[in-house]
Amino acid sequence: MNSIKTVAAIGGGVIGGGWVARFLLNGIDVNLYDPSDGAAEKAHNLLSKATKSVRKLVTQPLPTPGKLKLCTSIREAVEVAEFVQESTPENLELKKTILREVDQYAPIECLIASSTSGLKPSDLQTGFSHPERLLVGHPFNPVYLMPLVELCGGTKTDPQTLKKAATFYSNLGMHPLVVRKEIDAFIADRLMEALWREALWLIEEDVATAEEIDDALRYGPGLRWAMMGTFQIYRIAGGEAGMGHFLSQFGPALKWPWTKLMDVPDLDEELITKISEQSDAQAKGLSISELENIRDQGLVEILKSLQRIDWAAGKTLTKYENHLRLQQAEHPSPLLDLYTTTVHADWIDYNGHMTEHRYLQAFGEATDALLEHIGMASRYLTAGHSVYTVETHIRHLAEAKEGALLKVSTQILGKDLKRLRILHILSHATTDEVVATAEHMLLHVNTKTLKVCPFLEPLDNTLNGLWADHSMLAVPTFAGSRIQDLDP
Amino acid sequence: MNSIKTVAAIGGGVIGGGWVARFLLNGIDVNLYDPSDGAAEKAHNLLSKATKSVRKLVTQPLPTPGKLKLCTSIREAVEVAEFVQESTPENLELKKTILREVDQYAPIECLIASSTSGLKPSDLQTGFSHPERLLVGHPFNPVYLMPLVELCGGTKTDPQTLKKAATFYSNLGMHPLVVRKEIDAFIADRLMEALWREALWLIEEDVATAEEIDDALRYGPGLRWAMMGTFQIYRIAGGEAGMGHFLSQFGPALKWPWTKLMDVPDLDEELITKISEQSDAQAKGLSISELENIRDQGLVEILKSLQRIDWAAGKTLTKYENHLRLQQAEHPSPLLDLYTTTVHADWIDYNGHMTEHRYLQAFGEATDALLEHIGMASRYLTAGHSVYTVETHIRHLAEAKEGALLKVSTQILGKDLKRLRILHILSHATTDEVVATAEHMLLHVNTKTLKVCPFLEPLDNTLNGLWADHSMLAVPTFAGSRIQDLDP
Repeated sequence: MNSIKTVAAIGGGVIGGGWVARFLLNGIDVNLYDPSDGAAEKAHNLLSKATKSVRKLVTQPLPTPGKLKLCTSIREAVEVAEFVQESTPENLELKKTILREVDQYAPIECLIASSTSGLKPSDLQTGFSHPERLLVGHPFNPVYLMPLVELCGGTKTDPQTLKKAATFYSNLGMHPLVVRKEIDAFIADRLMEALWREALWLIEEDVATAEEIDDALRYGPGLRWAMMGTFQIYRIAGGEAGMGHFLSQFGPALKWPWTKLMDVPDLDEELITKISEQSDAQAKGLSISELENIRDQGLVEILKSLQRIDWAAGKTLTKYENHLRLQQAEHPSPLLDLYTTTVHADWIDYNGHMTEHRYLQAFGEATDALLEHIGMASRYLTAGHSVYTVETHIRHLAEAKEGALLKVSTQILGKDLKRLRILHILSHATTDEVVATAEHMLLHVNTKTLKVCPFLEPLDNTLNGLWADHSMLAVPTFAGSRIQDLDP
Repeated sequence: MNSIKTVAAIGGGVIGGGWVARFLLNGIDVNLYDPSDGAAEKAHNLLSKATKSVRKLVTQPLPTPGKLKLCTSIREAVEVAEFVQESTPENLELKKTILREVDQYAPIECLIASSTSGLKPSDLQTGFSHPERLLVGHPFNPVYLMPLVELCGGTKTDPQTLKKAATFYSNLGMHPLVVRKEIDAFIADRLMEALWREALWLIEEDVATAEEIDDALRYGPGLRWAMMGTFQIYRIAGGEAGMGHFLSQFGPALKWPWTKLMDVPDLDEELITKISEQSDAQAKGLSISELENIRDQGLVEILKSLQRIDWAAGKTLTKYENHLRLQQAEHPSPLLDLYTTTVHADWIDYNGHMTEHRYLQAFGEATDALLEHIGMASRYLTAGHSVYTVETHIRHLAEAKEGALLKVSTQILGKDLKRLRILHILSHATTDEVVATAEHMLLHVNTKTLKVCPFLEPLDNTLNGLWADHSMLAVPTFAGSRIQDLDP
């Protein structure tokens, strides 16, 4: 199924148009049938939004985009297609009529997938000449970014159909989840629907507004669901006592009026055992503590990602950092000012400014001054230890001309047994105008074996003292930054 | 409430211990009362996990940590406290007994918060001498990272109590959500419970396993809930036709067996209007298209953040990129090899290796070679235009000694009207061993006005051609990387 070159899309609304964008961006030609007004324009708008986001998401180059062809009949759209994706309104009779026409004209080996959120494939494939090729391929909005696609076959669906479709969707960057038992609304929408119905009650009864309900999700459980879902999160909360123990404690709550949904399964021994065993299998040998670390790393990354777009829980983080900054402002602690220089005549380039590599020379000399300051004298060096730079990030902000007096202020950004992360700020000594900054990662090495090794005493002790002071300083926001992508 | 210096924590389990960590990390002293075995050890373990994550999350320096004191009685813990956080097991009678003792010994102005997930504050404050100071402050696990805390007062709670507690929690980096109407399980847990009960049915009826249910969430709706919740996401899906129109379409689904929860509110005109108005208020003037852009940026950031920890939807993305890489591998396109050099004797430092700033000199000369290659000859320069480096990221990977023959291969990473982002790879010409890499952001400037300005023709055209070729190349994963934090 890697070789699919042409897909027919029946319906080009929010879901259908999202599919069209995902197909085209993966180099697949699309025959779109959508008789509604402005369908082509909508599809193009969606494609341009999708292109922007997908280019940001994917670091690999994308294939040459497929071609979009607007068709005037289902027959025209499907008769040369290798895969059909139907995304028409959620109406069983309408979908049946359309899908039967698709079945009539599509080549025999062409798979037919319906985007339905809830209708059963067995109901959709009635009256087909070739029902074995029909499946549900249920995506999530926006289709061009959301990884999940639920696959479900009906009673007459060939298991090979699900396998082939899973490979096809997977090569589009999606996560195919095969629903093992045919059921209305499959899995994700059942969970969403339960939550949604509870949310409607909360509004109906004036317990909360739409915004408060959304906040309860996005500052809370939504952050965990994005990463682990619900069972794995509860497994961690249960701790080393195990999932079975945790679930038995959970049982009583099912009798409490904690949602309007009071029709609950009996959480008996059998169900507890079933869930515990499934949870064990899901953990794939990771201990509670390992899962906890993954959860925490994931939360840190997600919160920081939301901070980058200044949204939801990311705003809370920024507000908190501002609060901490204000608290700290009362206790400034000076940086290390260990190096000054004048811009020499031979540091000037053809533009009349300080040559690029002379900046690094100045920063290198500032690093040497720092090393000397902490006691790394020539005796230390000749005894066979030194510090090597492994990484450097320079930002040029202003200019320096011949004769200018420059100074470097240095901040320790991090220190461990063998490494030192520092920041140099190069500025005009008279005006404090910042000319450039340099962040360096330094490794302590044995210069005889050329192996990394721990800092020696008493230097290590001096460094730890400096780092203890500097770890209390505000870290400039540009520290730890990267060179940004250019918008495609 | 900014001035709280001492908090009493009653109970130090998963939730209580998480609170203790959050308090200590914010410089607040904690009196912990927890008579269970190993309580102190548990608290310390949680603190060390929390410290690691919070230091990664927060770029600002944290205050000097508070001191943890283990108390042998509730009285000892609370009598000098300014705030009490109770986190004992979810048992009404137990909590009432404990909270009454807290009320007896805590100073009058001390607030008393219960971490209960579901019990009503009116029930908890019965028998208090000072019930006006009791509130629910319901956090989420892990308490030291999750922003949400739900606040709820009982019939006797002073509204000022909720305000003061909100300020206190907010200064700890949390998002306080005041629940406007007292109800079992407040807001977030009702939503979680509805979803959880549906999940239990799915397992009970063998529709899905624990892992499949978690996957349905974390590859799907969980990603959106983390950022926007449910109403705002539906608002976007509804499009320009508006929330009211979308909801009326949604109505019929409530009658369908899409969850086990069939006891639903009537989605009549009145409820639709109420939700639509609340949704309008929530959007705060952002258009559907603006919300859509925020959603898509957020999804991109969250997916990339999960990719950084190689987990869940982040793994799907990596798998997709590998697939694209394989597809591309059939069409390699050569980098630009425009510069070679020999390591001169005066490039060698006291360690016998090439001096740091000479690397940047070599990279600078390679950039000059690239500029010359695209047609930026001296005529272009003297006519008043040039290219300035604004950012540089160097990674040192191997060594170069005197006389070594080095070459630079150059890849264009991005190009817009006024900027060029490039990558130089410096390697031994004979062995291809990579010695160092440098990523640069270059700005095209008018050297007379010193203002950034668009590249001129025909150079711009040449660059666009190069960029068109190079945009199809695989981007090395280290491109766009940053200097990493050192683990505290």
